[in-house]
Amino acid sequence: MPFITVKVLEGKTPEQKRDLVKRMTAAVKESFDVDADKVFVFFEDLKPNDYGKQGELFSFKDEK
Amino acid sequence: MPFITVKVLEGKTPEQKRDLVKRMTAAVKESFDVDADKVFVFFEDLKPNDYGKQGELFSFKDEK
Amino acid sequence: MPFITVKVLEGKTPEQKRDLVKRMTAAVKESFDVDADKVFVFFEDLKPNDYGKQGELFSFKDEK
Amino acid sequence: MPFITVKVLEGKTPEQKRDLVKRMTAAVKESFDVDADKVFVFFEDLKPNDYGKQGELFSFKDEK
Amino acid sequence: MPFITVKVLEGKTPEQKRDLVKRMTAAVKESFDVDADKVFVFFEDLKPNDYGKQGELFSFKDEK
Amino acid sequence: MPFITVKVLEGKTPEQKRDLVKRMTAAVKESFDVDADKVFVFFEDLKPNDYGKQGELFSFKDEK
Repeated sequence: MPFITVKVLEGKTPEQKRDLVKRMTAAVKESFDVDADKVFVFFEDLKPNDYGKQGELFSFKDEK
Repeated sequence: MPFITVKVLEGKTPEQKRDLVKRMTAAVKESFDVDADKVFVFFEDLKPNDYGKQGELFSFKDEK
Repeated sequence: MPFITVKVLEGKTPEQKRDLVKRMTAAVKESFDVDADKVFVFFEDLKPNDYGKQGELFSFKDEK
Repeated sequence: MPFITVKVLEGKTPEQKRDLVKRMTAAVKESFDVDADKVFVFFEDLKPNDYGKQGELFSFKDEK
Repeated sequence: MPFITVKVLEGKTPEQKRDLVKRMTAAVKESFDVDADKVFVFFEDLKPNDYGKQGELFSFKDEK
Repeated sequence: MPFITVKVLEGKTPEQKRDLVKRMTAAVKESFDVDADKVFVFFEDLKPNDYGKQGELFSFKDEK
């Protein structure tokens, strides 16, 4: 505890995810004073066809 | 805001998802009086081996 | 199926949620050609202290 | 109802998932006295690059 | 690992939830051959105004 | 994007959550090179009766 889930557009490298796990674990330790050993992080990759905003699917948007 | 997640059996086309993003955004705008620009939609595809009901995995059910 | 989750800032009335259930069920039926009887909708209310964006907790933001 | 989601490291076979659907449905029926016909189970497979604990991404850990 | 989430209509007692944690942990241990010490269970209570099916909010349905 | 969800035992103050929003936003900006304006953070408070591990509900455990 705590359990952190990061939903992000696909394409991040394992090294980037590894880096974020380290930073997030440190962040939670600081803000919530919890044991770093009890911090869990999950990633959920979003595909461009599985994400929409402002009424339009991301893969169809000009600005990406 | 709001953030809408749609979990559905895999196989929907990008056009179907695009269509649903439009309809859902309009629906939320109507019911909740929110700005369409702030509506987010996420899709999560379910594989037949990752979904069960009535005590049986979907991929093993006769009726599908 | 499908299963729809709507995460929204708290304060919507049961009538507003009821209205959205109707609209969302109709939207999914149209876009995905599924049986309305199989559509499930869940609401998750967000408190102002449980939502942040642009680096700031919502309850501390001027613009809300 | 209820709706059960099982997040687990990828690699489980359909037979293992089928077996768990049966057991979980029976478990909920016993503990909550609900109709087995109304129990839904979802699986979410975790890839080794999408899961971290104790400050390290799972795919980089020695102990796995 | 694994991480199990149970979404259920509110009103279950702590004893019922405790009972289900035991049963689910045993079920996962059997089906997936995992260490019981690594099984996590989360409950999410649903209020009658936060759940809809067949186009109607649960709190407005005759059959409940 | 990205969308971060933090599930944690209840009892954190708004100031603690505010602090974590700042730190997480900075962490994601560093690791993923994304615009801080597009980072969303959600908190989900866990009650002691809604969380179990090692086969026991948290509220019944000696060690907490």
